[in-house]
Amino acid sequence: MNFEKLVRFEHGGVVSYGDLQAEEDGQYTVKPLDGTPFTTLKAKNVPPVRVEKLLCPLEGTPIIICVGLNYRKHATDANIPVPKYPVIFTKPPTALHGPNEIVSIHSTCQTHLDYEGELTFVTSKDLKNLPLTGDFDLSDYVLGYTAGNDISARNFQDPKVSGGQFCYAKSFDGFAPIGPYIVNSRLIPDPQKLHYTTKVNGEERQSTGTDDMIWSVKEILRHCSQGTTIKAGTVFMSGTPSGVGIFCDGLLKDGDIVEVDIGGVGNLVSTIKFEKQDANL
Amino acid sequence: MNFEKLVRFEHGGVVSYGDLQAEEDGQYTVKPLDGTPFTTLKAKNVPPVRVEKLLCPLEGTPIIICVGLNYRKHATDANIPVPKYPVIFTKPPTALHGPNEIVSIHSTCQTHLDYEGELTFVTSKDLKNLPLTGDFDLSDYVLGYTAGNDISARNFQDPKVSGGQFCYAKSFDGFAPIGPYIVNSRLIPDPQKLHYTTKVNGEERQSTGTDDMIWSVKEILRHCSQGTTIKAGTVFMSGTPSGVGIFCDGLLKDGDIVEVDIGGVGNLVSTIKFEKQDANL
Repeated sequence: MNFEKLVRFEHGGVVSYGDLQAEEDGQYTVKPLDGTPFTTLKAKNVPPVRVEKLLCPLEGTPIIICVGLNYRKHATDANIPVPKYPVIFTKPPTALHGPNEIVSIHSTCQTHLDYEGELTFVTSKDLKNLPLTGDFDLSDYVLGYTAGNDISARNFQDPKVSGGQFCYAKSFDGFAPIGPYIVNSRLIPDPQKLHYTTKVNGEERQSTGTDDMIWSVKEILRHCSQGTTIKAGTVFMSGTPSGVGIFCDGLLKDGDIVEVDIGGVGNLVSTIKFEKQDANL
Repeated sequence: MNFEKLVRFEHGGVVSYGDLQAEEDGQYTVKPLDGTPFTTLKAKNVPPVRVEKLLCPLEGTPIIICVGLNYRKHATDANIPVPKYPVIFTKPPTALHGPNEIVSIHSTCQTHLDYEGELTFVTSKDLKNLPLTGDFDLSDYVLGYTAGNDISARNFQDPKVSGGQFCYAKSFDGFAPIGPYIVNSRLIPDPQKLHYTTKVNGEERQSTGTDDMIWSVKEILRHCSQGTTIKAGTVFMSGTPSGVGIFCDGLLKDGDIVEVDIGGVGNLVSTIKFEKQDANL
């Protein structure tokens, strides 16, 4: 195991991956690593460095695959029938965003902006056609786990507006913050035994165990890999529980701070900033 | 203008871009080009070569953005209300596929397999926030036009199966063949004045003018670029007219040959081949 908590950081003008050792007084102690998690990743023969900022833990992704309606309690509360297979949609690579960052919200997305705290995982290698029966070891395919926020402009999710497809509402630049680090999958033997909360300005909005997921991490990977090559570094956002803003009169406003805190996996903090109306709109 | 009909081909063990000069007796005469259409593209100082096969005209794509329900006649025939904005979904880069190729169909996708002939265009540069008012020159942002087939496994489009999201049904490897070449956008002053047909085993199934599109190429680009960076090389499939297989008892079978023939833009031929049932399914 060549990392426990994978981060990316800049030091001396160079961006590299690292293994997070400690966090104290707003400073991070990081062991620098050579290479990438998808080629080779080796400890550099240098002492740990201290940095004030962590970058997005991935430098990019082939695609972000998201699961909708994946918590039993959420489905029951909303009285939505659960389909036979997972509800799958995507965000483009340009939506990927780092931790402790401002998410800049385009003027068309400000009236019904929402958060969705999600357990997020990243694949470590190209994979296809995982066997539908029999067990397999998740750590053979999953690099690790992190917190994610599937930011959504609900005004574009209305079927009368966008025909019921989710992609457009969730694909704006920065609408997929993840981090602050990726916990090695070998340290999370069962991702269905985690617990997380989502807070807005410190107020708890979502709270769930991942044992309430309808489709487990393993089942999502199996389903999505049938007939489809899942490239190394693909980011999966595995669905959100009840408590999103649209159903509790709690949509996001300019300046709001959203935290997705997964026990043992990290606390992702994002600050919402509304862009000014563009003169040409 | 450094090309008229952009192709990719292999010659002497080297894959490169080229400008198609002629097609005769199953052989293509190609002027080799140096570089890529997204960096620089220059004529090589060598004579044209003859090749028997053209590759996918793009070596890859950041993402494939698709428009659903974009033909008035199709919407009226199917009695589907037209939403306020385009219906947007995506296919991953791994769905991209070349012309005159076999499309290998996974065992889970064989019962309700369908074609969708579509006018397809490719962006030439990164772009964001195209002005919503006022005109602009498409050739400033569009590399060119080609034929595309939005292959769809309708069994996964059923809301009871996948919750109404289109992505999964359309994202399998090879489900986005394009080509055989990309016609320079400067040669197509108005992409809303094209006509195309889709044939299965020589039988015409779809026939439309692109003047029937609800959202024009320009409007699709404007809408999708709001708040979202559209990377150079993004492939847009702009929607399909009436005549798809599911509504005319004409779903695809093993061995079927599908042609999407756009006047002035080229004829994309794909052969459907069903994979054997996998023992582990």
